[in-house]
Amino acid sequence: MTNDLLALDSAAQDLLFREAHTAHAFSDEPVSDEQIQAIYDLVKYAPTSLNQQPLRVVLVRSEEARERLVGLMSDGNKAKVAGAPLTAILAVDNEFHEHLPRLFPAYPNAKDFFTERPAREGSARLNGTLQAGYFFLGIRAAGLAAGPMTGFDGDGITKEFFTDGNHSVLAVVAIGKPGEQAFFPRGERLAFDEVFTTV
Amino acid sequence: MTNDLLALDSAAQDLLFREAHTAHAFSDEPVSDEQIQAIYDLVKYAPTSLNQQPLRVVLVRSEEARERLVGLMSDGNKAKVAGAPLTAILAVDNEFHEHLPRLFPAYPNAKDFFTERPAREGSARLNGTLQAGYFFLGIRAAGLAAGPMTGFDGDGITKEFFTDGNHSVLAVVAIGKPGEQAFFPRGERLAFDEVFTTV
Repeated sequence: MTNDLLALDSAAQDLLFREAHTAHAFSDEPVSDEQIQAIYDLVKYAPTSLNQQPLRVVLVRSEEARERLVGLMSDGNKAKVAGAPLTAILAVDNEFHEHLPRLFPAYPNAKDFFTERPAREGSARLNGTLQAGYFFLGIRAAGLAAGPMTGFDGDGITKEFFTDGNHSVLAVVAIGKPGEQAFFPRGERLAFDEVFTTV
Repeated sequence: MTNDLLALDSAAQDLLFREAHTAHAFSDEPVSDEQIQAIYDLVKYAPTSLNQQPLRVVLVRSEEARERLVGLMSDGNKAKVAGAPLTAILAVDNEFHEHLPRLFPAYPNAKDFFTERPAREGSARLNGTLQAGYFFLGIRAAGLAAGPMTGFDGDGITKEFFTDGNHSVLAVVAIGKPGEQAFFPRGERLAFDEVFTTV
């Protein structure tokens, strides 16, 4: 009924939202670099404060890197990373402000808002997480299943996969075609009135 | 060319991503409660850790509330809030864990992960921001324009619009049909190789 109020067609509503579902097991079918590039070509339009785009992504493809990552995931997530054809580490570059003269030329001094590291870290975390939400939807837009995870040793992953000390990990996401018994029953969602108030 | 790699149809790609664009001015056409309900009915499926759904939204409709909010926005954002038919304050409930026995019944003790307030705040901020990214896309899915903003007095908004001390503001978003000169030129996006590395 409420569909009449949406401009998005119902097939897209289903693909991205209504039938999209966190996957816990994946098939062996590989995920190509070209698929990830097509996803990025779509989700790169996510809005960020002053166009700062702090998200950085490590694609974990080699067996050696996958094993290192599995060792840093919480127990409940190890099998998901071990079994997915591709896993991505989503992080932010806390030195994103160095790119602002190029990314936000309308305000050449935008970089100066971020001289303090804590201000940079807060802004990077907020905007990078918005981009992560877009990236999850991009995975669904490519007809793939996403298994986003936040249970891991974040400091360990940062040290192991980002050696410059300038990055913070946000989330890890397994990517692929769903395998057998990939999905758990959908959890209850809060009702509109539990989330929204009007003033 | 890369579109062949996506399952999402090209009209939906354009609506949500390629032609979606932060709006800076809005027409007078109202945004109804039914439209916001339809948006929520779509974006409520965003994945969150342990299905925690910490996002809470205040819809600022009355003139009195709008004036209070305008006073707490940074100078560059006051006109946008004053001129939009509807503005939403996106925040998180740092006491979200009280709902976990209902929202994540598969693990009845999930609430115990969050006995410490800093752990709750970090998780709420991460997951609520993911939900905010979905909400922005939901606004586009409804054929509306979104003007997300992070320039405001966050402590002031928290005190003014959430009196229980349990909420943190993430972002403010103006919602409506685009007005005249609503859009600035699209800012440059980082190239794939600047964002992604493979290991």
